[in-house]
Amino acid sequence: MTPELISGAAERLSGHIRVTPLLNSPVIDRIAQRRVFVKAECLQHTGSFKYRGAKAAITRLQGSGWTGGILAYSSGNHAQGVARAAREAGMTAVIVMPSDAPQVKVAATKAYGAEVVLYDRVAQSREEIGLQLAKERGLHLVKPYDDPDVISGQATVGLEIAQQASDLGIENAEVTVCCGGGGLTSGVALALAEKQPDFIVRTVEPVGFDDVARSLAAGHIQKNERASGSICDAILTPAPGELTFPIIAEHCGKGLVVSDDDALHAMSLAAQHLKITLEPGGAVALAAALFKTDSFAADTVIAVASGGNVEKDVFLRALDTH
Amino acid sequence: MTPELISGAAERLSGHIRVTPLLNSPVIDRIAQRRVFVKAECLQHTGSFKYRGAKAAITRLQGSGWTGGILAYSSGNHAQGVARAAREAGMTAVIVMPSDAPQVKVAATKAYGAEVVLYDRVAQSREEIGLQLAKERGLHLVKPYDDPDVISGQATVGLEIAQQASDLGIENAEVTVCCGGGGLTSGVALALAEKQPDFIVRTVEPVGFDDVARSLAAGHIQKNERASGSICDAILTPAPGELTFPIIAEHCGKGLVVSDDDALHAMSLAAQHLKITLEPGGAVALAAALFKTDSFAADTVIAVASGGNVEKDVFLRALDTH
Repeated sequence: MTPELISGAAERLSGHIRVTPLLNSPVIDRIAQRRVFVKAECLQHTGSFKYRGAKAAITRLQGSGWTGGILAYSSGNHAQGVARAAREAGMTAVIVMPSDAPQVKVAATKAYGAEVVLYDRVAQSREEIGLQLAKERGLHLVKPYDDPDVISGQATVGLEIAQQASDLGIENAEVTVCCGGGGLTSGVALALAEKQPDFIVRTVEPVGFDDVARSLAAGHIQKNERASGSICDAILTPAPGELTFPIIAEHCGKGLVVSDDDALHAMSLAAQHLKITLEPGGAVALAAALFKTDSFAADTVIAVASGGNVEKDVFLRALDTH
Repeated sequence: MTPELISGAAERLSGHIRVTPLLNSPVIDRIAQRRVFVKAECLQHTGSFKYRGAKAAITRLQGSGWTGGILAYSSGNHAQGVARAAREAGMTAVIVMPSDAPQVKVAATKAYGAEVVLYDRVAQSREEIGLQLAKERGLHLVKPYDDPDVISGQATVGLEIAQQASDLGIENAEVTVCCGGGGLTSGVALALAEKQPDFIVRTVEPVGFDDVARSLAAGHIQKNERASGSICDAILTPAPGELTFPIIAEHCGKGLVVSDDDALHAMSLAAQHLKITLEPGGAVALAAALFKTDSFAADTVIAVASGGNVEKDVFLRALDTH
């Protein structure tokens, strides 16, 4: 990973991605007991930041002359990002998705023209299925996080945060990031290490799926015991990536953990006060800012709200209960 | 109204207002049977475009040396915009609000430090109460729409649309605008007449409160028969303004009307597919784009989603029923 890889991705993405706003609200600030800004990646094309990494990887492939199909495995957000970026590049896409993925994500992936192959998240390995399909059908695998081009695409979230924070006169902040495999976190951490070196990046995960927090504490990669059982489907990855973890370990502070109910509460407050729709896995970074107030030293937290692709019944539950 | 008034407001507002994104979604396009872009003013400070006009008027007052208090009458969005802009200018604010205004708007106005005076929307005239209070307490009245500075502030929505449409390569579009007193519509129409003269602005109102559509058809100002009875509280103004109507009549196409249920349906689709929270009165422009498909000739509609300050029970109703 080099700064040139990130600036190259930023150039390829310019004009294709949305520069998402940094939102805030006095009510959110009051609850969090400090200034909170939310990087609203739910407003990105396909409803999550994943389009950035997919677009970065697929435009690079285009540049290298690849004209075949694309394969990806994903719980749904990377799926949509890859499906859209592949269609824009005139490539076919085959996406391996868990059978318990939200229907809204499966439907949206198909709507972008991709072929969807379902698998059992508990009994089967998506990596194995993916590699086999890639081999059989001559597809190029775009990994969800452990790929330098994907990380460099996600890093553009960090470049935007650095610029937007500078415009707002923010000199010191902790930046909370929803963390699954670590593609977004490592990209944001690399971008900020270069552009805003005083900012501290903090990973946020749901209770029971805190592989990154435990890996950071242990100093080497730890796995989750379970593969499912949280509403935060977007970030239930078995372990941090081989490529992403060393970056996270070098640049990030202590990992944070929130409950599913904290995520639902953050979703309700985001809908009411920031006017955005978040999915549970996309709300944990805001949940940490709101409800883990003792975990921060800085007077400003920037929370990356990574996605908004939520089933309506889960969204209604969040609003009904909070 | 001159172009200089608008460019002056844009300069004063720069760095204070959010440049709100223009959002779209393939699902929305499919339902609308054409390309639809949504100008997400629900993401503006205070949750609606009204902050722009209030900020434009109050910064102008500051420039003229006024150090007294501010008075405004409003169903809630202008109230919050004025309360915030007054506080930023170090001025006190007194806001006259209807007693049936959403509690969320009354609470937010108070949270910005304003004093709230309630009145009966049916039996009393807010204009009379406002003028009397202004006289008694030496306050400067910032009108909700019939004020050149307020219109010039709202016009910055149009300047942004012109630039964003140009960036997206959109050469022809109809621009639907939620219309109460006409401050936003006249501002957007003036800005687009200068910057994108081929765009056609269309007003949108709820059934039963179509004073602007009827005024446009008649060629002179018509009043609404009722003062309340729609969930679209933000845009239930008795009649278009003396200052705004001639501008609307000169620049806008035929007025559009949608039902309250159309507004709720648009709110639900916006939350699911654009990831934004809209209030009923802020959703009618999108509702027209979605459900009045025969009313447009252009292949692109840009809908101004003017605000997102909705009571939770109304938002839940929208999501539950659609």
